This record gives sequence, C-alpha cells and structure tokens, in this order.
Amino acid sequence: MLTQSAFEKQLQNLIRLSDNPTYLLAVSGGADSIVLAYLFSELRNAEIKFQIAHINYKLRGEDSDSDQKVVEDFCKKNDIKFHLYEVSENDKQPENSIQLWARELRYRFFREIQAKENLDFLVTAHHLNDQLETFIINLSKASGINGLSGIPANENNILRPLLNFSKDEIYQFAKENNIVFREDLSNKKNDYLRNKIRNEIVPKLSETNGQFLENFKKSISHLNQTKNFVHKQIEIIEKDLSVFNKEHKILSKEKLAQESDFVQFEILKKYGFKRTEEIQKIFSAENGSSFFSEDYHLTVDREGLILKLKNLSQEIDPEIILLENFDSHQDQIMIDLKSYIDENQSFNWVFDTDKLHFPLYLRKQKNGDEFYPSGFSGKKKVSKFFRDEKLSALAKEKIWVLCDTEDQILGIVPLRQDRRFEAEVNTQKTTTVQWTEEQPIL
Amino acid sequence: MLTQSAFEKQLQNLIRLSDNPTYLLAVSGGADSIVLAYLFSELRNAEIKFQIAHINYKLRGEDSDSDQKVVEDFCKKNDIKFHLYEVSENDKQPENSIQLWARELRYRFFREIQAKENLDFLVTAHHLNDQLETFIINLSKASGINGLSGIPANENNILRPLLNFSKDEIYQFAKENNIVFREDLSNKKNDYLRNKIRNEIVPKLSETNGQFLENFKKSISHLNQTKNFVHKQIEIIEKDLSVFNKEHKILSKEKLAQESDFVQFEILKKYGFKRTEEIQKIFSAENGSSFFSEDYHLTVDREGLILKLKNLSQEIDPEIILLENFDSHQDQIMIDLKSYIDENQSFNWVFDTDKLHFPLYLRKQKNGDEFYPSGFSGKKKVSKFFRDEKLSALAKEKIWVLCDTEDQILGIVPLRQDRRFEAEVNTQKTTTVQWTEEQPIL
Repeated sequence: MLTQSAFEKQLQNLIRLSDNPTYLLAVSGGADSIVLAYLFSELRNAEIKFQIAHINYKLRGEDSDSDQKVVEDFCKKNDIKFHLYEVSENDKQPENSIQLWARELRYRFFREIQAKENLDFLVTAHHLNDQLETFIINLSKASGINGLSGIPANENNILRPLLNFSKDEIYQFAKENNIVFREDLSNKKNDYLRNKIRNEIVPKLSETNGQFLENFKKSISHLNQTKNFVHKQIEIIEKDLSVFNKEHKILSKEKLAQESDFVQFEILKKYGFKRTEEIQKIFSAENGSSFFSEDYHLTVDREGLILKLKNLSQEIDPEIILLENFDSHQDQIMIDLKSYIDENQSFNWVFDTDKLHFPLYLRKQKNGDEFYPSGFSGKKKVSKFFRDEKLSALAKEKIWVLCDTEDQILGIVPLRQDRRFEAEVNTQKTTTVQWTEEQPIL
Repeated sequence: MLTQSAFEKQLQNLIRLSDNPTYLLAVSGGADSIVLAYLFSELRNAEIKFQIAHINYKLRGEDSDSDQKVVEDFCKKNDIKFHLYEVSENDKQPENSIQLWARELRYRFFREIQAKENLDFLVTAHHLNDQLETFIINLSKASGINGLSGIPANENNILRPLLNFSKDEIYQFAKENNIVFREDLSNKKNDYLRNKIRNEIVPKLSETNGQFLENFKKSISHLNQTKNFVHKQIEIIEKDLSVFNKEHKILSKEKLAQESDFVQFEILKKYGFKRTEEIQKIFSAENGSSFFSEDYHLTVDREGLILKLKNLSQEIDPEIILLENFDSHQDQIMIDLKSYIDENQSFNWVFDTDKLHFPLYLRKQKNGDEFYPSGFSGKKKVSKFFRDEKLSALAKEKIWVLCDTEDQILGIVPLRQDRRFEAEVNTQKTTTVQWTEEQPIL
C-alpha cells in the first residue's frame, strides 16, 4: 500500500538521504505527479529542498491551462518554487511522433532548470502500471532482457520512487488525502499503442489473477537482477580478452571467436555493432578490413579487433547498404531495417512485391533524386522534401534512401514511403519494410 | 510460414536426423497435433520410424470418441501404428487440478509405450501461441528468467518442432492440405486461465502490432540465450568455490558470501534452497547447524557448506515452520507460502484478520486434529478428510496444517481452507495466504 512511510522507504532505497540531495519534480497535474509532489511536500520537515516544473504544451486549449493551474495552485499553497515552460509557435512540432518531440522538449527544459537551480535529481511519477505497459510494448518489439527488465528507478540522475506502486494505490492515496488533481487527458489521446494496452490489455491481465501487478513486480525485479549479473559477467569476459594499445582497445579475435554468439553479440554491441550479419562478417573479414558503427571504427588486424572512437572530422560512413536478397515468388517478404541501421523512429511500409526488383538497398541522397511521397499527389524533389520537413543538417545526414536494384526510390527512411509501390487491398504478394524500436521511457 | 520444408528445417535444428531417431507422436485429434502427424507422415520417404499415441479421457462422451476416431482413421489411412489409452473408472480423478492429473496420466502412458516400442523421442504439437500463453501465465506468477524463457524445443527427449509456428500458420497449413481435424473442445473448457489468455488477451496483443507473435518469438529466443549464459556462468562460479570431500560437495562459505544475492540464490537453488529468508539464515547460522531441502541436507561447517544428498531412510523433516509475523492492524496482509514450502498446487485463501492470532505457522498433522472444511457443514477429523480425499501415503506426507498461534487450524495445505476464519464480503482487514506456482508445460 502507498503510504508516506512506504514512500520514504522507497526513496531511501534509491539514494542516500543523508547527503541532503536536492530535487526537481516533473508535475503534469495528473494524479500520479500531484501525489508525488504531495509526498515530497510532506517530507519537508526534514528540510528537504525541491522545486516543481510544469510544461504547458498548449495542445488542448483550456484543458492544458487548467492542468497548469492545478500545479501552480499546489505550489503556491505549499510554498514551492514553480517553473513553467509554455510551448510556443517557435517550438516546431513534427507531424509524426509527437510523443518523442514532447519528451525531448521536456527533458531539455528540466535539465536547464536543474543546472540553473543546482538541483541534483529529476524526479518523475512513473508507476507500476507504466512499468507493465512499457514491458508489453517492448515485448511487441522483439526486445531482449534489456528492454524487458523494467524502467530503472535511478538512472542518469532521474529518480522514479513510485515505480513499485500501482496506479490504483496512487489513486487510493490521493482520495484518502483529499488531493486535488486533473484527469490526465493527454494520456487518453496521444499514444494509441500505450492506451490500447492500458485500457484493454492490462485490465484483462488483472482479471486473470488479483495479484497480477504484485507478481509482475517480482518478475521484473528478478529480470533486473539477471540483467545486472549478465552485464557484470560480460564485463569480466571482455576484460579477459582485451588489451589496451596506446589509446585503443584491442579485443583478441581468437578468444572472442571461441565465445558463444550471445557473448560476441553482447560485447560488440557495446561498440555499436549490433547486427548479426555484420558480426559474422567481422569474424570472416581479412586483416585490414574496417567496420564502422555510430561511434566506433573497428579494424580487423593481426593483433585483434582494434576499436577506435571515431574522429568525427574524418568520419567515413558507408554510402550503400545492401539488404538481404529475397525470392520475389514468396507471398510475404519481411525486411527489418533494425538489423542494418540505427534509427529512432519506427515505421512499417508495405509494398507490392511485383513492382519491386530485388535485392533492395539503402543509399545516401543524390542530387536530382525525386520521388512520389505517399499521401500527396505528384512527385517531389527529395531535397525539396527535406526543406519542407525542416530537417536540420544533422538530421539530413541520418536519412537513407530506400531503393530497388533498378534505383527506383521506394521511400525516404524513416519519413515517407513512395506511393507508386504501395501495396493495395487486393495485392497478392507483399514486401514489408519496417524499423521497430524499443520503447523509450516517455 | 509453415511448409513441409520449413518444418524439416526446424526438426533438423533440434536433432541429428542422420542418427535415424524414432518417435512417438502425442496426437489429440486437434489441428495442431494432426498437422504434426501429417508433417511426419510426409517425412516418411526418408524411412523415418514413428508411431502415434492418443488418450481418450472420456470426459466429453461422444466428443471424446470422435476425437479418438479422427486419430485412429488418420493412422489407418497412413499405415501408422496407433496406441490408445482409454481412461477408466480405475483412474481416480481428483476434484481440483484436472489438468495436472491428465498431464501425469498422459506422460506415464507415453513413457510406457516408448519403452516398449523402443522410441527415442516423444513429440508434442506445442506451438508459438502456447509459448505466449505460458509466458503470460508465468508472468502472472512472479516467474524469473527460467519461467519466462519459453517452453524448451528439445528437453528430456521431448521434441516440440512446431514451437516456432503460430496457431494461424498451422490452421492455414491444415486448410491448404485438406487435413481433417477436430476442434479441440477440451481446451475450450478445462483451463479457465489459459483460455482467458487465449481468447481475450492474445487477440488484443496481436491487434497492437501485426508482428506481435513474430517479435515475441525473437524476445523469447533472446531470453533463452540469456538464460543459457546465466546458467553457464553460475556453473563456472560454483565450480570455483566448490571442493569435493569424499562423496560430498562443499561450497566455500567465505567465497559464496562475497557473491551477490543473485548468485547465492542461483547456486543454492540447485540444491533446493530457494527461500531468501532461509538463505540468509544459512549464512548467519553457527557451525553445526543443519538445513534440509527436498533432496539435500546442508550442514554449516568450518570447512564450508557441506551438501549431502538426503538418505531417505533417515530423513529428518522439520516439523514446524514459523511464518513471518505481521501487525494485525494492517488492512491487508499477504503471506506467500512459496517462500516456505514446495508445493505443486496453487491456492489463494483469504481470512478475516480479526479472527487470527499471529504469527501463523505450518505443522504436520497430529492425532485428533479436527477442522471445519470450507464448502461443507460441520467439522471433520483431518485423518478422515485425508481418507475421503483418497490421498496416497506419499501425498499425505507432503500435507501441512496451517495454524495460528493458538493452534487453531486455518486450513489443510494445499487442499482446503477452514470456513470459520474465511473473510466475508464486508470484512475490513484481510489476510491472504497463497501458494503460486510456475506454470508447468501441459
């Protein structure tokens, strides 16, 4: 049950209260975060220093303003310093992925206040139901133990002291203490997947077993311990097969080759090499071959696998990535770009296989590239498309053009599919190209 | 997609076909197992030897007989040796846990045929949907990575070559090949939890993401690799802190004490010591102290923790197990006996806290014990209750009596609660005593 003392115990488990840390609470005005603020305000006899930050996204007119008022009133009443960020016309809002955009905006604002006010920890009101929703989302995205071992309760100076309490427990606490909060309307609208899980799946799970959430909490705790053990063991193994040569790290190729696929993957993943095919290539490559991840340059050498942090000024990016070949007679072809490129935006494009020429590949944009953006009529220069999407130079560099073997442009990854090749209702053979990400903590 | 060649590839991944192994297929008559039989019969040009076993539980009258007929006809038509077990009056059927009883009956029958006919592997038709259902059930029962890393595809000479194919794929295959099967009615009736998950939760999960099952398969595969890595590492660590003294194993207490809780738990678990409290006691106990698990006798000694396989003739079982104490003013008290005893039957009893005297404890049955079995009027001798439940001597030995501190009998674990102490609708403060198990593979 959530009580003031149960909460304090949780907080004590996360940090050393005797250090007198200072906090910035992220408060939306919903039950979860208002209860969090209340719990902190009741801690104050212990001379605890905390402030509150609220973002008004202006997405829901009066509703947004009422949310702000609830938080502002709470701060006034309890004499807590209140920080407000009002989203304005200048904060460009992207067409897709409002959630990610809002998240970036939010954390930037919080970090600024923390720096200015010298506040050690950002505190958020994530709870056990958030934990379960994220778990299911990650399960639907093929996550391994890292994605399935839970939102961390203390990471990167962000604390989540309500993670072990369910939404019901938080509402119960709010009721018992006559706490005024706002129904969190934004949650009900913006995130289709999370809301489907929240409103349709979690209630069914709870029906199977009255202790579902309690038991899920234990499962997560066990998986988290397992994850920590795996990370520690991988570190020990890596240390055993590493030498340092001047500033570079060298992994013994012979020793690494003797380890299981799992260990190879877990070690090379740390340096950004995550694709099974690429890892296989590394082991079969001749001496002198180079491989590049986002941050590292790996050279296969007689001495071993030499890992250098990439010097950004002389970065050599691959210009073409050839995708796995497929027999176009199959009914369903599935290509997940996750095995090829880093991205942070999910998409799922379905093509008419008969219109494609395999193998497909990814390349960088070229002058004169044109395509037929899905959802619009007519064709468009890719460079014009970039301008209209208001992409930064950096964002532009991360864009890939998906082509078939006849250099027909099938889509601009991850932004827009080409409508000429889209599958239709009666299409017989389809090719799905997708990128699925692990769910970030929103 | 499930095709004959995709199936053969799976089978090849599991075993060495070149050894010409022989198989016993468990076939109920439902789509899954009939498709399995069909796939094997199409393998036969390769001179493969397999036979089919069917159990008629006689639980659904004509329906049960029609199931049997479909399997029998299939065997006749394809010239496959058919083994039948018809459940008779002599096979006592327990009141609760029909599923576990049926499972035991089934596997005993299969093992007998395998021995008689000299068949290497038992083959079952478990598929990807079974995998997902079991995963969710285990999640609801607080399982760790062992319960969440999937039904094994090859374990104890049981093969499950359809595990990577979904129910839809199997039905599609049956349709395309005009395979005659029976709707598996038993599934629709007997297992409330599994059916709720199958009919209400899995469809919702699939709606969130068309690739849900495919991605779940990848998650399970990753968790399985993680589990194997953890087991291997734990073995290495254990080896490093073990010595053998004559026939006994001795674990270095000093070295084990320096390992994390996770490692201590994973090592001691192998010898049946699974309760956190017990493990803590082992480390704080004086030299000469003894602890007993189902199979082992652990002695704390100057040399270390001495582990001896228990000699059954001089088995010393604890007679009393004291449960954690609780403040009876709490609204909700939760005691999970899983931390105290081994069981194989789940239950969940809710008591009126005001009628109990803490701490509670478990003890063995004594002469003259009487209680008021829930669901019946009047009281009953515990010995009479045992007779009426037709418990074997062995089963009787595993029974615990749950008492409070005034020796009032609260229930016979795991069979029956005492009705005098049951919570009612308007009970304010409740004490839940439960035992939750990981889901066996049915």
